[in-house]
Formats: sequence, structure tokens, C-alpha cells
Amino acid sequence: MSQALEQRLLEQIEQWELVDPHTHINPHAPCARTLTDLLGYHYYTELAHSAGMPKKTIEGPQVPQDPKAQAAALIPYLKHIDNTVQYSWLVEIAQRLFGFPHERITEENWEELWHLAEQATQRADWEQQVLRTSRLQAVFLTNDFDDPLQGFDTSRYVPCLRTDDLVFKLTEPEVQQRLVRATGVEVHGAESLGRALDRLFEHFVSQGAKACAISLPPDFCPEEVPPDQADGAWKQLQQNPQHAQARSLWSRFVFWSLAQRCQEFRLPFDLMIGVNRGVYAHGVYQGQDLFDSRVSLIQYAKLWNAFPQVVFPVSVLASVTNQELVAYSWIFPNVVVHGHWWYSNTPSVIYRDLANRLEAVPRNKIIGYYSDMYKLEFALPKFGMFKRVLARVLAQEFVLHRRWSEQRALDLARQILVENPRRIFGLE
Amino acid sequence: MSQALEQRLLEQIEQWELVDPHTHINPHAPCARTLTDLLGYHYYTELAHSAGMPKKTIEGPQVPQDPKAQAAALIPYLKHIDNTVQYSWLVEIAQRLFGFPHERITEENWEELWHLAEQATQRADWEQQVLRTSRLQAVFLTNDFDDPLQGFDTSRYVPCLRTDDLVFKLTEPEVQQRLVRATGVEVHGAESLGRALDRLFEHFVSQGAKACAISLPPDFCPEEVPPDQADGAWKQLQQNPQHAQARSLWSRFVFWSLAQRCQEFRLPFDLMIGVNRGVYAHGVYQGQDLFDSRVSLIQYAKLWNAFPQVVFPVSVLASVTNQELVAYSWIFPNVVVHGHWWYSNTPSVIYRDLANRLEAVPRNKIIGYYSDMYKLEFALPKFGMFKRVLARVLAQEFVLHRRWSEQRALDLARQILVENPRRIFGLE
Amino acid sequence: MSQALEQRLLEQIEQWELVDPHTHINPHAPCARTLTDLLGYHYYTELAHSAGMPKKTIEGPQVPQDPKAQAAALIPYLKHIDNTVQYSWLVEIAQRLFGFPHERITEENWEELWHLAEQATQRADWEQQVLRTSRLQAVFLTNDFDDPLQGFDTSRYVPCLRTDDLVFKLTEPEVQQRLVRATGVEVHGAESLGRALDRLFEHFVSQGAKACAISLPPDFCPEEVPPDQADGAWKQLQQNPQHAQARSLWSRFVFWSLAQRCQEFRLPFDLMIGVNRGVYAHGVYQGQDLFDSRVSLIQYAKLWNAFPQVVFPVSVLASVTNQELVAYSWIFPNVVVHGHWWYSNTPSVIYRDLANRLEAVPRNKIIGYYSDMYKLEFALPKFGMFKRVLARVLAQEFVLHRRWSEQRALDLARQILVENPRRIFGLE
Repeated sequence: MSQALEQRLLEQIEQWELVDPHTHINPHAPCARTLTDLLGYHYYTELAHSAGMPKKTIEGPQVPQDPKAQAAALIPYLKHIDNTVQYSWLVEIAQRLFGFPHERITEENWEELWHLAEQATQRADWEQQVLRTSRLQAVFLTNDFDDPLQGFDTSRYVPCLRTDDLVFKLTEPEVQQRLVRATGVEVHGAESLGRALDRLFEHFVSQGAKACAISLPPDFCPEEVPPDQADGAWKQLQQNPQHAQARSLWSRFVFWSLAQRCQEFRLPFDLMIGVNRGVYAHGVYQGQDLFDSRVSLIQYAKLWNAFPQVVFPVSVLASVTNQELVAYSWIFPNVVVHGHWWYSNTPSVIYRDLANRLEAVPRNKIIGYYSDMYKLEFALPKFGMFKRVLARVLAQEFVLHRRWSEQRALDLARQILVENPRRIFGLE
Repeated sequence: MSQALEQRLLEQIEQWELVDPHTHINPHAPCARTLTDLLGYHYYTELAHSAGMPKKTIEGPQVPQDPKAQAAALIPYLKHIDNTVQYSWLVEIAQRLFGFPHERITEENWEELWHLAEQATQRADWEQQVLRTSRLQAVFLTNDFDDPLQGFDTSRYVPCLRTDDLVFKLTEPEVQQRLVRATGVEVHGAESLGRALDRLFEHFVSQGAKACAISLPPDFCPEEVPPDQADGAWKQLQQNPQHAQARSLWSRFVFWSLAQRCQEFRLPFDLMIGVNRGVYAHGVYQGQDLFDSRVSLIQYAKLWNAFPQVVFPVSVLASVTNQELVAYSWIFPNVVVHGHWWYSNTPSVIYRDLANRLEAVPRNKIIGYYSDMYKLEFALPKFGMFKRVLARVLAQEFVLHRRWSEQRALDLARQILVENPRRIFGLE
Repeated sequence: MSQALEQRLLEQIEQWELVDPHTHINPHAPCARTLTDLLGYHYYTELAHSAGMPKKTIEGPQVPQDPKAQAAALIPYLKHIDNTVQYSWLVEIAQRLFGFPHERITEENWEELWHLAEQATQRADWEQQVLRTSRLQAVFLTNDFDDPLQGFDTSRYVPCLRTDDLVFKLTEPEVQQRLVRATGVEVHGAESLGRALDRLFEHFVSQGAKACAISLPPDFCPEEVPPDQADGAWKQLQQNPQHAQARSLWSRFVFWSLAQRCQEFRLPFDLMIGVNRGVYAHGVYQGQDLFDSRVSLIQYAKLWNAFPQVVFPVSVLASVTNQELVAYSWIFPNVVVHGHWWYSNTPSVIYRDLANRLEAVPRNKIIGYYSDMYKLEFALPKFGMFKRVLARVLAQEFVLHRRWSEQRALDLARQILVENPRRIFGLE
């Protein structure tokens, strides 16, 4: 009975047209061109490496240039990760987008998949077809601050200002030069930084940006820093770019300045809280980051008190922070729950995090899901995974245990998955 | 089958007469007088505020005096929180206590509810009827230390000495004056504090108090403080009431002195661990407190080693501390598991916390639930929520998976819900 | 349907021959001789004590020498812990190994059990029978560094070098003397320590040891310590064995030196992370240890980066660390997930920890379970508990929700329970 109920709910949920409020899509090349583009997603390279594939056979000078040879090298390691949900995404793409008839991708059948992928991705309307099959209406991007935002339809591919480099890397000469080129402003301290940020926000908002975003390490603790202290820190960093206290002061100053612009330009500020970069130093590309679950949202209390008019969609990396996210979002009007991020983006974790959100956070403050994808093909299986968990939570926790009607459960699902992302990010 | 089993268990559980071992009931006005008294529960004001209702329309000089107008203002925001379990408590009161026939409370039907509530609460025997319907035999109070404890039946409304003010606010002149009025003792340091506490405990115990209680911030770490150090701290606080180290020393001294009295007067000492007060500074009344989940019960190891004869019923605010609570209660004879507190008082969190407790804590050391209510009407839906989760845990984890008989499962449930609170708090 | 599916999976799983990769078995006396040997397992003494049994009636001079009288004293307290999963292990042993016909062990029927146990354990082939019934092919030991490892079959009872004493207690004269006797080397600093460790590893490996193991407190943070600093620390400790900084330096030096030998001698290094010893000072034997869940695996990042060729099977004590373990194992090739330890070894905790592992860690990097037992009889109920949870996870999460075939689910189970321990620890 419970299985049939979940299935009925899922069939309805799968009809809806979606917005994907956080991805890493390149709007100039949104789709994979070969199977290698899919296998190159860090989940597969890092899991294959973890399961035994030497790094030098994944990246670096010894790796053949030929994409097919690259794929061939990774295929034998898939058998070690075929239990993972990430592997299931790949199979779902293979089956539903490419028509692959097998349950697993093996050394025997992968060339069949290679050819199916080749045929599919070379179709002129492939991008349209993927969008249609995935029921995607709009896809948020993650744009570097110096992205010209030209040459694509910003109502389909919605710009979003990514600010990690500004907050954590502005002491690097290369980043400073990128900022000069993008804004015409050379940063010498607090005042010039403010002018540069104004230019960036003007540019992004004029080009249809709908959010500002940043990922933050577990020990980050935002605080207002007076301009003169920021100026002092900037001067110290010119002498010693590694000066820990000056770096910390300056980072917090830039971060606070971004929040001020989000208020002024009415942009939501996506906070992705909790990642430590480069923990596994010898890991593959994008497969080096981990976390320290000892983080608390109380570190953000000053920020959220100071900017009541800025909406903060918050993602947490560790599931142990989810109950804090539920509580902070239930109390702070400007804190919104945002998707299931990275290491918490697996079914059993989503189930418990989502169940807690749906029972205690106001329904107009929950953004159900984003894919975080690099290639458009991944929206289908990643949203698919979320929808199945969502149907299960609704069936178990709401229809069976709280005796809701199915329609009432579906209305709630529709709000968090379809309506809230549009309303909260201000899409027309 | 599993649904039917849960239902059978639940029907038995709902027959039992209960003690509610922690509430904020005012024994002189235990019931709501209007719907506004129910809607004024901080869960509804804080969730409505979080969902978009401006604070100035909830409290302060601009809010109309008329209770009905106050209710009318909040009703439109209920639709944003009708997914929450807190909303379901309100609907359950409306339906089961007032006879409201609808599934949701809307701008169209709320006046019907207003009138039903008015009729019900004006009945002469309303208090008796609520107690009877809720199967409540005794309700613990939370009494300020200067409460005269007069004018009510202390076998029905059981006094409990709340000590937050003593531990954390004794440096405030107003609190000192209240203590002088209550005890005749002016505090000048360790020795006079001891005399004042003796008077308070004598008064409370003579009036039938059955517990001492306190809520504690995550960074609190109890420790014995020698009287001369406490005297020094007290002197420093006369100069500078904000002196952090002196405050910390003095608080720990008062806390330890309370534990000594709990031992001497044989009172259980309820510890409610983990709340940070006033985190959302602009929140509504009682809607400003949150938490930092980075707390460990190891902070209490010295206390529990030092007072083996005091029973400590312990509540934790964050579910991530629940496994520690299970382990500390499984090891320390004097640590008892106590209910599901505040942000952890939602069904999915109760399920996992309770399942872990029932499989690893001695059954004579688990106090199932308390309502924490301010108005008597809330016992029915809050205990109702717990009973449904309890029936589900018993059905899934014990009858189906551990193959217990239903009677054996019910005996366990009865012990934690009915027998343990009576025995542990020493009710006749 | 789901119940029947779980049952079908379980019946298959129960056919497999197992390796138990972590126990505290004494190979010279692997089995219980009386019921008292089973009741003396710290779970029963500590839970009985927690439930009200005075310590002095459990251990110490007032306790009678007669084993039967010792058992008789504990039996009346079993009724307070008969909800716990630990109690269920005892009943499963009683029923399945001794033929006890009752569901509970009471003051009325325990002598029947006493006699059944007496008859069974006195059989000449009892050890063989327990191994056969439990389907155990090999059992890892936990050997003190000065264990001669003589007089038993090391292919059945596999030696494992336990190193807690070396890392944390080498400042104690008694431990130093044991090391001299075992190796002929007197430690005077870094160099002599290295020689002593070389001798230990040579001895253990030559006797068939397959792992090095250690349990670690939550605040331990491994780091390379230069030999001259280690020498300095050792000298300070000769003056003051309690010097905190010197102890910390020296411990980290010894630990790092062990990791170097694990690399050289190709031994996996079992890390059991998170226990605080002696927290409940008045607890019974082995019933004093607890934990602080505020630990992060990021403390081990330097170690895992430095020793890519050493396999680290990692156990975590607190379930809140499980998601970190999943993530670190998904990223670091040399980090392997290892069993469900101590306070996390209860069904509801295993369910959620295991579900998360199976959906995100490469399948060749998960070691399903170890019993941690002191007497051979406990493998049956402890593995039995794990197998039932495993069948439930497979049924719910893989067959029903991810639509795997039952055979595919069983292949995954077989790999983590049977194949991985053999391969990872290098059993023939």
C-alpha cells in the first residue's frame, strides 16, 4: 500500500516544470559531448580513485588525449562503485537519455553506451531535448565575478554572482587584476573595494542575475569590520599575504560588504556553509574537499540580525547541522532552507533532513532541491533521486502518519519544488 | 499490517492516566480563555513572524488590545505554517476539544473556531474537562524561586523550583531584592547564598515541590568552586557586573550549591541542556532563542561523579546530543533520560531519538515525555504526537523487528510514560 | 511484503562463513565456562549498575568467590534492562546455544539456564560447536605488545598488535619494563623507540599478525614530530611524567612511528576514534568510558595524506561522526569503513549509519561488522543483530527503493561481510 501510494505521488510530482536554482552549467556548452564528459564529473573520478584507480591514470601528462581512451581507463573501476547513488545517476542518464538497455555499465557493454551517447549528443536539438525530458525551465549558473554574461539567454540560464574569490582570494595578484579588468577599479582598501563591488553588482543585476552566492569553510564567522580596520588589514596583507589575522579581518570585511550590496540590490545571498578545501592534497581535480562537522549556525547570528531585508538561502554540508538549519529558519524570517548539498545529497540523508524540514519550517521558506550539476544531463537523475525521496517522505510522514490527503501532500511538494524557487529568487 | 499494529498499540496507550513532568502552567489560570491565548503560544507567533508577519503586528504598542483583533491578524499567516507539526497541535485542539469540523483554520472559517473556543472555555468545568479528556492526573509547574506556592492544589499542580535566575541573574539588583523578599537573606557571598538557598528549598519542599530545574547554555561547564573564590567573584561583580570570569565562577558556585541542596532535600535536578538565549535579537517574545549543537555531556562528568545520590533527569536541545544522552544514561546511575525538548520535539526527531533510547537505556531510567505547555489545552495534542511516534517505534523496532509480543511492548511503553515519572519524581 | 523480503535476504546471509576482524578473545580460553562469564561482560554489569545495582555487589572484596552466587546477585536487575539490545544478545545465546526455552531470564528460571550453560560449556567440543554454529572461520585478537603469541592456531585466532599502551602509557615504568622484556630494547628517546617498535613488528608479523590497532580519545590529532623534539619531550617526561605538552608530543611521535611500521610491514592500521577513558570514575570494570562527540576526522587529514600506502580501517564511536567517515572514505583511497563500534552498535544507529555507507562508499572499502566480543558465544547474537539490520537496509533502500534485484543486493552484502575483511586484512 505504501509503495503504491509513493508511486501515485511520484507520478504527479514528475509532471511539474522546474527551476534548478544552483548549478555549475556553462551556458555556452551546457551538454556533454561524449560519455567522457559525464564520466569526468568529479563524483566518478574521485570515487574511482578512492576505489583504487591511480591518480596518474585519471589526470596529468600520462593520460591520453583521446576522450574514448580516457573513458576506457575508468570503466573497469565502475564495478567498485556500482552500489553508490552517484553511479545510479550515470545509469539513469544512460537508460533514459541514451536508451542504454543494461542495468550496469561494464567492460563488455560500455562501448555500446559510448556510441549511444555519441549519437544522442550530436543531435542538433540535444540541449532542447535534455531540457524538455528533464522538465527544466530555468537553470541558475555560478558565474565568476568577471564573467561578461554575454551570448546566452539569461532567462533560461540565470546568472548568479559567485563571490568565493572576492572574499578569500583578493590578496592574489591575479584575482586583483581580474577585478581591475572587470570593474576598472584598483583595490587599495575599504573604499575602493566598495566601488568595485558596486560595479560588479550593477553589471550582474543589469544582466539578469538573481542571486549572489558563496561557499564558506566551517570556521568562518561573519562580523562587521570597520573600514579603518579593513584598511589596516589590507596594508598588512601587502607586506605579508599570509598574515592570518589580517586575512581573517579582510575576508570578513569583503563578506559584509557583499551582504550590504545584496540588500541594496535586492539579491538573495546563497550561503553554502561548511566546506574545507584541499583536505586530500593528492586527490583528483575537485575531489580534495571535505569538511569538519563542528560548525554552528550561531556563527551567522550577527549577520542575520544585521540584514533583515536580505534573504539568505542556506545550504549545509553536514547532516548534523540540518537540525540547526531547521531551527534557524523557523526563527529567522530571512533564513531559507536550500536543497541538499554534496555529501548530504544521498537518499538516506535527504530523507531524514527533509522530513525534519517539512515538519517544522514554514512551507514558504523551503527550497526543495538544486542539482549542482556541471552538465545538463545530470538534472534528470539528481532531481529524480530527490523526487523519489520526497514522495517517500510525503507518503510515510504526511499521508500515512499525519493522515493528510494525497492532494494536500502534493500541494506542499509543489510549493517547495516549483513555486518557492521562482518566488524567492524573483523569476518572472 | 504495520499500520493496523500501530493502531492497536496506540489505542491501548491512549487509555493511560498521565503525569506531565514539565510544563509552564499557571495554576491560577491553567486554561486558555480565548483562541488568542492559544495562538499566542510562541510557536505560532514565531513561525508566523518567520513566515512574513511583521513583529509590530504581533506585539508592541501598535497591536490592538482586543484579543479577537489580535487573532484576526495572525490567521492569514497560518497558511504558511500549516505543514508544521506545531500547526497540527492547534488543529487537534480545535477539533477534539472545541468540536471544530474543519481540517484547516482559514480566513473563512476561523470565526467559527473563535466562537466554539469561547463557548468551551467559558464552561465552569472546562479545566476539569480538559484534564479528563487529556487523561492528566498531575502537572508539574515551573515556579520562580519567589513564588509563594499558595492557592492551588499542589497534588494536581506540582511545584518545581526553577533556578535560572539564581544561577545566571543574581547580579541583577532586582533579582537580589526578590531573593531578600523571599528568604529574608541578603546575599553578600558564598555563606549568605547558602542560607538563602536553604530557605528556598525548605519552602519549596514543604509546599510539595518534587523537582529543581534549570536550563543551561551550551558552553556551561559545572565545577566545584571553593567558597573563598566565590566570595572573590561576588566582590568583583559588585564593581563590574559584566566581569566575564567572575560571572562564570559565581554561576558555577551557585549551580553547585543547588546540586548540594538537591542531595540534601532529595529532589531530582532537571537539567535542560543547550539553549542560547536572545540569538535573534529582533524576534518576538519567547521566539529569540536558538542553540549551538557543539555541546557535550562530558561537560557534566564532574557534576555527575560528585553527586551520585542526586537523580538528574536530562533534556537535550539538539538531536545530535541524543546519542551522548543515551550513553551517559546507560553508564551513570544518576542520569535519567527526560522527554523531547523544544527543537527536538517534532515527530521525525522523536522517532530516531526514542528508538535509540529504548534499545540501550535501562527501562527504569527513561521518562517518556513532558509537554512544556503554557496552557492546559496543549497536553492533548503534544502527548498525542508523542504517543503516535511511540506506537510506531514499538511496532517497527520491537514487535516487527525484535519479535516482541504486543503486550511486552505495551508494558515498556507504560513504564516510561506512566510509571517512571511517578516513581522518579516521588509522587505518591 | 517487505517483511517477507527481509526474511528471504536474511536466510541467504545466514549461510555465509565469516571472519570476525576485531575481538578481545583470549585464544587460550575462548569460551565461557559458566553463565557468570557471560553475565560478566561489561554491558551487563554496567547496565545493571546503571539500573540500580550497587557497585560493591558487582566487584570488590564483598563479592562472593562462587560464580553462581555472583550470577544470582545480578539476575534480579535484568528486568530493568530487558528492553536493551544487549539483553537480547544474552537471550539469543541462551536460546540458540544452550537451548533455553524462555523469552526472558528471571529470578524464577535462571537456574535452569545456569545448568544448561554448565552442560553445554563443559562439552569437549564446545569451542568447535560455537564456531560452527556462528559460522566463524577466523577471529581477530587484540594482543598486548608483549604477548608471546604462542600456543594457539594463528590461522583461526589471528593476532593483532594493540598499541594503546605504547602511545599513551610508555611513561609508566611498568610499561617500559614490559617493553624491555618483549624486545630487549630500553627506550631512551626516538631512536631506541624505533628499534623497539621494529622488534615488535617483526615478532607480530612473523607470528601471523594481520593488523595493528589503537583506540584514540576525541582530542587526539596525529602529526609528524621530528625526532629531536621527541627526544626533548622524552627527557621532560623523565622529570615530570604528567607534563601535558611533552606527553602530547611524545604520544604523537610514537603514533607516527607506528604508522611508519604499518607501511613498512604492510599491516592495516585500525583506528578506533573517539573514546574518553574513565569518565565515570566510580563505574564498574570497563564501564567507565564515554565520549565527546565533538571530534572531526579532519584531525586525521595529515596522517592519511602522509601514508597513502597504509590501509586505515576506521571505526567511529559517535554516530554523528558517521557522515564524516562516509565522506573521508569516499575521498581518501586509504580510509576504509570498519564496523559499528560500542555505543553505535545498536540497531537503530546501525541502520542509519549503514544506509549512508552503502549508498556512498565504494563497495570494496566497507568492512561490514566485527563483534568486539570477549567470549566466543557473543559472535552469534552480535553478528545476528547486524545481519538483520543489513537485510532490512537492503530490502528497504536497495530492493524496494532503488529497484535492485535480490541477488544484486546479496552480492553487495556478501562483499562487505565476507570478502572485504579477508581481502583487506590479507587472509589467505
